[in-house]
Amino acid sequence: MTHFLDTQDWSRADLDSLLEMAGRLRESPAQKLLEGRSIALLFLNPSLRTSTSFQVGAARLGATAVVLQPGRDAWPIEFDFGTVMDGAAEEHIAEVAGVLSAYCDLIGLRAFPRFEDWAEERQDRLIGALARYASVPVINMETIVHPCQELALMRTVKDRLGPPAGRNFLLTWCWHPKPLNMAVANSALTIASRFAMNVTLLCPGPEWRLDDRYMARAAENVKTAGGSLRVTHDIDQAYRGADFVYAKSWGCLAAYGNPERQTAMAAPYRHFIVDEAKMDLTNDAWFSHCLPLRRNVKATDGVMESPRCVALAEAANRLPVQQALMLKLLGHGIDNIALPIGEEDKADG
Amino acid sequence: MTHFLDTQDWSRADLDSLLEMAGRLRESPAQKLLEGRSIALLFLNPSLRTSTSFQVGAARLGATAVVLQPGRDAWPIEFDFGTVMDGAAEEHIAEVAGVLSAYCDLIGLRAFPRFEDWAEERQDRLIGALARYASVPVINMETIVHPCQELALMRTVKDRLGPPAGRNFLLTWCWHPKPLNMAVANSALTIASRFAMNVTLLCPGPEWRLDDRYMARAAENVKTAGGSLRVTHDIDQAYRGADFVYAKSWGCLAAYGNPERQTAMAAPYRHFIVDEAKMDLTNDAWFSHCLPLRRNVKATDGVMESPRCVALAEAANRLPVQQALMLKLLGHGIDNIALPIGEEDKADG
Amino acid sequence: MTHFLDTQDWSRADLDSLLEMAGRLRESPAQKLLEGRSIALLFLNPSLRTSTSFQVGAARLGATAVVLQPGRDAWPIEFDFGTVMDGAAEEHIAEVAGVLSAYCDLIGLRAFPRFEDWAEERQDRLIGALARYASVPVINMETIVHPCQELALMRTVKDRLGPPAGRNFLLTWCWHPKPLNMAVANSALTIASRFAMNVTLLCPGPEWRLDDRYMARAAENVKTAGGSLRVTHDIDQAYRGADFVYAKSWGCLAAYGNPERQTAMAAPYRHFIVDEAKMDLTNDAWFSHCLPLRRNVKATDGVMESPRCVALAEAANRLPVQQALMLKLLGHGIDNIALPIGEEDKADG
Repeated sequence: MTHFLDTQDWSRADLDSLLEMAGRLRESPAQKLLEGRSIALLFLNPSLRTSTSFQVGAARLGATAVVLQPGRDAWPIEFDFGTVMDGAAEEHIAEVAGVLSAYCDLIGLRAFPRFEDWAEERQDRLIGALARYASVPVINMETIVHPCQELALMRTVKDRLGPPAGRNFLLTWCWHPKPLNMAVANSALTIASRFAMNVTLLCPGPEWRLDDRYMARAAENVKTAGGSLRVTHDIDQAYRGADFVYAKSWGCLAAYGNPERQTAMAAPYRHFIVDEAKMDLTNDAWFSHCLPLRRNVKATDGVMESPRCVALAEAANRLPVQQALMLKLLGHGIDNIALPIGEEDKADG
Repeated sequence: MTHFLDTQDWSRADLDSLLEMAGRLRESPAQKLLEGRSIALLFLNPSLRTSTSFQVGAARLGATAVVLQPGRDAWPIEFDFGTVMDGAAEEHIAEVAGVLSAYCDLIGLRAFPRFEDWAEERQDRLIGALARYASVPVINMETIVHPCQELALMRTVKDRLGPPAGRNFLLTWCWHPKPLNMAVANSALTIASRFAMNVTLLCPGPEWRLDDRYMARAAENVKTAGGSLRVTHDIDQAYRGADFVYAKSWGCLAAYGNPERQTAMAAPYRHFIVDEAKMDLTNDAWFSHCLPLRRNVKATDGVMESPRCVALAEAANRLPVQQALMLKLLGHGIDNIALPIGEEDKADG
Repeated sequence: MTHFLDTQDWSRADLDSLLEMAGRLRESPAQKLLEGRSIALLFLNPSLRTSTSFQVGAARLGATAVVLQPGRDAWPIEFDFGTVMDGAAEEHIAEVAGVLSAYCDLIGLRAFPRFEDWAEERQDRLIGALARYASVPVINMETIVHPCQELALMRTVKDRLGPPAGRNFLLTWCWHPKPLNMAVANSALTIASRFAMNVTLLCPGPEWRLDDRYMARAAENVKTAGGSLRVTHDIDQAYRGADFVYAKSWGCLAAYGNPERQTAMAAPYRHFIVDEAKMDLTNDAWFSHCLPLRRNVKATDGVMESPRCVALAEAANRLPVQQALMLKLLGHGIDNIALPIGEEDKADG
């Protein structure tokens, strides 16, 4: 049994196959390949896109999604082992994993870091514990990485740029009133380097670099696959020649757990906003963001409403990539997905 | 593409057709005409009937409903344009509308006024913004009007009275411990006048009149369609001869945003409760209410449990009218709805 | 029309039939016998297992489940009759029951006691009021008894022990930081005695006995069906010879409504935890618990992870027993449930 916790655990061939399956599902969305199956969606944090795209995606495949919010409508969960559970948690992840594995064919979990202690939170223990005890595949719906978003991003990159290898991908930090989860930044760095793009990470200074695990992974990916990786703090240099601009705000690891210091550190950098002037420096780049996005804070209205903004297209791609993922985790491959009517001949040829 | 924001935007023929479709769906409820389709239900306020009837109604048609509660399980939303979003809202309605349009075939929104500033809130900007940016039909699930309730009300009026034109419809204000949304009152006035009924609005005094937009609309409706409109503060006069009594509490516009003043203003009028003595003055009228209803505050137990109370029948009608609405917005007409087995001949004849 | 409020209201033959149907559904889970039907699930308290197993169980039968949380996403409900509803409740259970009966084919309710006044709460008025006004079958999803759990427990007992009559069933109290609902303890006592087991109730002292209604019922059950009932405060004696150990924490009726006193009273009894040493005294007993369970508080990690722990199996059984229940309440019997392919001959024989 395979989990989907981090794209880095999956082969490039399997990732390509997911993206190809997603492309086909987009053409021919209603195929009841998962009739009678079900997926439990555990949200410890809010969701709009993830929840809706999984629910609708499952339904179109004939499956049922059950949304659970432990600590709100379900019981608070203990994720550590060997503890005497006389605190707030009413049950252990071992039982939650076992029970949901009994009822459902797949389990998704969203569990953001709590912004307290990065040394501990970078271990991503919640989803690790779930995967350890689940007897069905577990899907990461965003913890300290967001691999479903990676698939949607790369499906969008391919749709717009064709083969990603050798194209210029800019991941730019941007300001936000609160320190945010680094997951999507870690993920963008992971997947763009995995697909051999020339990756530029733009951030205000060296203290805004992402965690070493993800920096090292990106370096290794480009060594293996091709492409390149550079970090810069020079906005102009970063945007020049970019083919794809991806924006994300993230908290500074040096001030992790200290939101006031974080806010003070970020204050001078509101000008990292993605605006028309910066986009004009690019190679007529596409712009995207994982959403939710604060307009005129992370990107201007002008950028968001320009024809080069593909944030909505990326969000739309969440649905077919997650359908592909559910199918693949339950043993289906591209050959199980029927072509749209009238397209069968092309596939044979 | 058509939205369903306000019945006044729809032709009388289209409203009649919805009610006819609803009648047929009631006879033959399970028709999978929306297989593989989906509706997003955005609730900024609580719901029992609306949520359940849309979910069950969609399911019986083969569709899926996704329930979202922005600000609770999804992100808080900005509805204004051009703002620098550095406050509480994490994303803009433009993106929410775009994303949900990508995943779903229909979007419903419930967004009550916040009881702060009526001049601003009477613009009903939230659903306006959603409709502006959505690329699929938007359904008003109650804002400052409640058009789905109007359909259920009028379906119930027709069921009980036959053709509504010229029948006496009493909309009576009643006391409630808190100032309530005027939506259902605005709606009852709108739809009863639209269907050419003789409409009486009973309220404690002139300061309890509904917003001018809805008063003027009702006057215009009866001018166009027939029927009549009067406002009275005389309980006896109002009930005499009524064929249909519809109760609703609503806040006083003169004290909008000032709940203490509102409560003080309403205090002398607890006797507006619908009771058996008042119902005895009518033309053996049917009684209804949109629910939820506080018993022995808005209507007595005796009225609620009398055989002339059709509040449950009206609530039950929410399901088929909303099924008809979803079908119509997605291109289906009455001819797509199969007759119950054994009834086909009657339709031909 | 039959409700499912308490197993004691059902005949032993009907309970046996439910368990048999559940066994068959387990073998052949996807049978769309309830296509187009729906169940409303009203939760006044959190749920993981109940919510998920009803949702997935309904979906596999072709039905839809609607989850409602009155007071959170739906309106607060009044359960008393004749009250002037000028407090917090926005609507009456009579209307809720009527409306949900109009939309759905079944209604489930979870309504824990509030731990204020046992004399009042032992009347279980909420579900009584719902059942009185509903025109469709009502299912108890845990109030002061938990009959769905009883079915899952007894299905598990039969799976592991074969015929339950005459086997030794130990219901042991255990410590918990908060006073908990007695429902599952009442239920375990009810169903084990109903199935003629030799029931031992182990608790720290006479003040920890369950409510007289359930003690008397258990005594009567064993008088009628066979088996025996004893209460003991001697841990060793209780465990010796047990075939099935069932753990549950519950609040002390003598301190009902007084959590501080309760906590003080319970403090000396943390050693009632189910551990390996106690399990070694048994007849190689199976261990189970309704879950959620606090590890190393109610039972040790060692007990939970031992091959004799069937808590997950019991939780898994929630799904087929509740499917059987929904089917039976809607008129289906064992003959409507198809055998798995290849098994039809055995059934004939």
